Amino acid sequence: MTIRVGIIGTGLIGEDHGRKLVNVISGSRVSAVTDVDRARAEEVAMTLGGVRVHDSGHDLIGSDEVDAVLVTSTGPTHAEFVLACIAAGKPVMCEKPLAPTVPECLQILEAEVAYGDRLVIVGYMRRYDPGYRQVKAALESGQIGEPLILHNIHRNPTVGESYTSFMTMTDSMIHEVDTSRWLLGEEITAVQVIPPKRTPKAFPHLQDPQFAVFTTESGIISTVEFFANSQYGYDVRCELVGSLGTASLLNPVVASALTEGQRVDEVPADWRARFGSAYTAELQAWISGLQRGECVGPSAWEGYAATKVVEVGVEAMKTQERMTIDYVAKPALYGEE
Amino acid sequence: MTIRVGIIGTGLIGEDHGRKLVNVISGSRVSAVTDVDRARAEEVAMTLGGVRVHDSGHDLIGSDEVDAVLVTSTGPTHAEFVLACIAAGKPVMCEKPLAPTVPECLQILEAEVAYGDRLVIVGYMRRYDPGYRQVKAALESGQIGEPLILHNIHRNPTVGESYTSFMTMTDSMIHEVDTSRWLLGEEITAVQVIPPKRTPKAFPHLQDPQFAVFTTESGIISTVEFFANSQYGYDVRCELVGSLGTASLLNPVVASALTEGQRVDEVPADWRARFGSAYTAELQAWISGLQRGECVGPSAWEGYAATKVVEVGVEAMKTQERMTIDYVAKPALYGEE
Amino acid sequence: MTIRVGIIGTGLIGEDHGRKLVNVISGSRVSAVTDVDRARAEEVAMTLGGVRVHDSGHDLIGSDEVDAVLVTSTGPTHAEFVLACIAAGKPVMCEKPLAPTVPECLQILEAEVAYGDRLVIVGYMRRYDPGYRQVKAALESGQIGEPLILHNIHRNPTVGESYTSFMTMTDSMIHEVDTSRWLLGEEITAVQVIPPKRTPKAFPHLQDPQFAVFTTESGIISTVEFFANSQYGYDVRCELVGSLGTASLLNPVVASALTEGQRVDEVPADWRARFGSAYTAELQAWISGLQRGECVGPSAWEGYAATKVVEVGVEAMKTQERMTIDYVAKPALYGEE
Amino acid sequence: MTIRVGIIGTGLIGEDHGRKLVNVISGSRVSAVTDVDRARAEEVAMTLGGVRVHDSGHDLIGSDEVDAVLVTSTGPTHAEFVLACIAAGKPVMCEKPLAPTVPECLQILEAEVAYGDRLVIVGYMRRYDPGYRQVKAALESGQIGEPLILHNIHRNPTVGESYTSFMTMTDSMIHEVDTSRWLLGEEITAVQVIPPKRTPKAFPHLQDPQFAVFTTESGIISTVEFFANSQYGYDVRCELVGSLGTASLLNPVVASALTEGQRVDEVPADWRARFGSAYTAELQAWISGLQRGECVGPSAWEGYAATKVVEVGVEAMKTQERMTIDYVAKPALYGEE
Repeated sequence: MTIRVGIIGTGLIGEDHGRKLVNVISGSRVSAVTDVDRARAEEVAMTLGGVRVHDSGHDLIGSDEVDAVLVTSTGPTHAEFVLACIAAGKPVMCEKPLAPTVPECLQILEAEVAYGDRLVIVGYMRRYDPGYRQVKAALESGQIGEPLILHNIHRNPTVGESYTSFMTMTDSMIHEVDTSRWLLGEEITAVQVIPPKRTPKAFPHLQDPQFAVFTTESGIISTVEFFANSQYGYDVRCELVGSLGTASLLNPVVASALTEGQRVDEVPADWRARFGSAYTAELQAWISGLQRGECVGPSAWEGYAATKVVEVGVEAMKTQERMTIDYVAKPALYGEE
Repeated sequence: MTIRVGIIGTGLIGEDHGRKLVNVISGSRVSAVTDVDRARAEEVAMTLGGVRVHDSGHDLIGSDEVDAVLVTSTGPTHAEFVLACIAAGKPVMCEKPLAPTVPECLQILEAEVAYGDRLVIVGYMRRYDPGYRQVKAALESGQIGEPLILHNIHRNPTVGESYTSFMTMTDSMIHEVDTSRWLLGEEITAVQVIPPKRTPKAFPHLQDPQFAVFTTESGIISTVEFFANSQYGYDVRCELVGSLGTASLLNPVVASALTEGQRVDEVPADWRARFGSAYTAELQAWISGLQRGECVGPSAWEGYAATKVVEVGVEAMKTQERMTIDYVAKPALYGEE
Repeated sequence: MTIRVGIIGTGLIGEDHGRKLVNVISGSRVSAVTDVDRARAEEVAMTLGGVRVHDSGHDLIGSDEVDAVLVTSTGPTHAEFVLACIAAGKPVMCEKPLAPTVPECLQILEAEVAYGDRLVIVGYMRRYDPGYRQVKAALESGQIGEPLILHNIHRNPTVGESYTSFMTMTDSMIHEVDTSRWLLGEEITAVQVIPPKRTPKAFPHLQDPQFAVFTTESGIISTVEFFANSQYGYDVRCELVGSLGTASLLNPVVASALTEGQRVDEVPADWRARFGSAYTAELQAWISGLQRGECVGPSAWEGYAATKVVEVGVEAMKTQERMTIDYVAKPALYGEE
Repeated sequence: MTIRVGIIGTGLIGEDHGRKLVNVISGSRVSAVTDVDRARAEEVAMTLGGVRVHDSGHDLIGSDEVDAVLVTSTGPTHAEFVLACIAAGKPVMCEKPLAPTVPECLQILEAEVAYGDRLVIVGYMRRYDPGYRQVKAALESGQIGEPLILHNIHRNPTVGESYTSFMTMTDSMIHEVDTSRWLLGEEITAVQVIPPKRTPKAFPHLQDPQFAVFTTESGIISTVEFFANSQYGYDVRCELVGSLGTASLLNPVVASALTEGQRVDEVPADWRARFGSAYTAELQAWISGLQRGECVGPSAWEGYAATKVVEVGVEAMKTQERMTIDYVAKPALYGEE
């Protein structure tokens, strides 16, 4: 059975995912698209093989030709479309964040619990990266003992002027919030932000780089350096320190050169070069799951938890104090971590 | 358009490719299988979703439900089925070697040239490995200058008793023959085999490890160490030495551990772990090409050239002398290298 | 001219330095030793070639046969002997810390300033490590831009029961305090300690691992993870993040092995394996300087500053608050940083 | 006891060694120098602290103020001075080669055997490199099993016009001849030279790069790529392939940078940067040995064997055939390998 996917939001990431669903994912095709920018939607529809363009996300969700929905519209619209999918009983993959505010996330949790089965997954693709999985496997094998500290590095080459200091938390460190929760298997219960010296290479309004320390239920700390304008490349690494050893995520290297007095490896240019295949793996897992009637991917609970942490993280940025984080009770639908 | 693939030969590699065509390749499904072992074919047919089992490769090739053929039967049967595909005007991907003997390869070239268009590709998957491609890109960028030497390492953990000394050339080094030709863009015109000391870990009849020096048209040498029973893992590397620098294929590493006094990376366990995604990329390129009406992959000429080199390589193993290699004229169908 | 060195304190480090002065340093010999444990002093005196054993450090400092003094006695005795050396006008190399308390350090600064010339150096050997020097050179070359963050890792395999939580700051992180000051060329003006989850592999009284964030005059942050019982080895690394790139200190690797499915490098077993040659370089620089009539090495000011930072660091460990650090004015004798 | 060393030949390497003996070696000083270029000798004598300049090597060897001799004059004069040292009963360290011809080497062996004790060491400094020693230790530990193949890479950035094709063997690969013998603990009994394509970056008379395959008594092969004008740097590596695993000599790396889209390590600029500390270790071992009355370092036999191999290697370069190598019987003085 081929899963017919409708895409709400045909920006860069929507188009990228659409192309994957058409060209490299087994078992899917794109049957419908929509975007607030109709012309853009029509342009992307052509590149995907001439699929149907709907007037709105709600139209698309209601279409008989759409088995599953991909929400890649802007963050503030996520909750509306995800809720509509749940109302229609259709599986939905929502790009991160699940929603930018905690109340919206809670509404989604409530709706999905009321529906009685999982329909929603959130696009935290790093969980599908082979390096991250190897770090998790090292922990689970017992060879590094009990986890105590996680050090994270997350660097972009540059960001545009519209990127704000709060976005270092809500758009960027949110990835480390998710991978920390996933690797450590615990909720984050406190966060402190410690701003480093600012780079002269950022727009003046931006605190860049940024540094935060997250603490989990059992007291593990997860440190995160995020650097939006590192200039040199896209660089995501971590070291998980256990009581017997450590496991490190490296920049993937498959070749190197010796030239002009140096040994040189390439650093990825951007998230697409670094995590393109993780996106593919995530989409394939989702589609293959749907073919078997299963909902495979990070749950709405994971989406809520990440949004909750970064919401408090933004407060912590303002107060410069260590802030604690409380959660609603975890519904049974979302099982054990 | 979904490409319906028929598989001739449902051994390990046939089954593996079949699963990929069903589960991870976009645009294909498996519509038919056959094998000399009917029971095996039926078993694999079930795992691929209950596809039709044919009595013979010829039946399968003739079926209306087969758009393209994958030949993964034993080497000596390759030519027969590839020729039948050409006769039927159907695209065919043949696992390496194209055929074990030069006359068979020449028959295929002749048939394809007579047909007037390319139908045949040969499964030299390493060309789709990101590391090898990065080495080739480094050469093409000019940063390492003009190629002078290529050093190759190719190690397996172990091989069974049926593996013979000649197979070090015909089954194993044939990969380096292909990658050398492809990376350097030149034919190999001589070969010398220099047997090293034998490992005590091989069956007594086997010359293992093995060492060969190939020379190309312009005098570049390509050294190959092949070690069938290296014990420690599957390890494929190379260093391309140019007049300005070198480019090296590394074992891909995405994570590492610090434990018990050591920093540790994993070495792949076998070719599946190392080149599984290269096989996927090769199959996807072939299928996507067929959807566009193109024949994408190493040509029958590449298959012939590799078989020719290893045929002389086997002679060189016997004579322990440097042997030269001559080729038939390259038909226009196969264009410039 | 051979420099005749007297050693006060013939514990492990005193003996080690003594052996270097006798066997691998050019231009020095050991002429006298002393220790509170007379038997130990005599034993070491024999291994150094039968040198004179003095009853006390003061006797040794007064001896005509001692040109320069090495203080490797316990921390609380450092100030007394360093002050006696200054009083005697003799060059002295004092193992870190210069003194465990700030008032003692200030007394030494005062005495040296009164003497009018530099006599004292402090044994911060990491400044002589080729890796650290390469990181500093990368910064000074301009290739990584302006420094913004320094991340430090410092791990021991194990420590004994007598090792206390405060010692993570006063004995261990003091090294990162010194290297941070030296690499960044700025004083540290604030410190916060954020204790991670404790390893089950430490004695219960010990906060291990430990994490601290130091801030410099211009706002650069220097993060330090110290782990006394990491189990797996001795591991000192850092990454200096600049506005254009980063420079990293690696574990020195000169060889690797492929065996049993893994690529393996060795991690140093202890500080001696890792920094033995830095100690040699430091001693040679000191001795060669003395031969030329110069005082080469980290100054008493550097010793004071490090002690000052860790003193506040200990307070910060108690308060769990960010604490600021103030210094006395820097005497002209110690020049520009 | 301070060893007073006389230096015959104050070219670059003689001056370098002289400076080490004065400034960084414990237990030595330079008491005399001589050179065919008297002015040069006097200049170097000044930099070494104003030591005595002799009219000839023979004068210097005869001097009461010379305890041991360092021969760093041109190759063709080595035998004459080494023989004179033996005649005078004085320890001598001779830079490689022991002598450029086999008859000269045999004369030295004969003289030393007649003298009845070891006086001569040859400057194969790589044996003192920590990386090479770690490779040897890995072999001796048994973890890589029985040695089967050794792959060697030896690259210079550039050479001058006076450098000839034969020198690739007699001056450059001679290092790999020595390290192969030392690592494998066996004599080399055959050699074949297989010239690769020439770099356009060398003078036309020079075969560059060069490739040779050496075979030992038990059939182990040692492959050597030597590249005189590699342009990019000085690069010496090897991989020792055993029946259970491999051990590799790496370029020593202590720091790395991330900048402009790349991860970058430095490659040594020349032999001084790469092996400077191996020379120091070799000299210190020699001097410390002399202080204890022992002769520590590669023996005259090692010097003879290396010269013998490269002599046949030069023939092999001419014949392009595999040539076998025979040795005189090893005198008891030189013990078991």
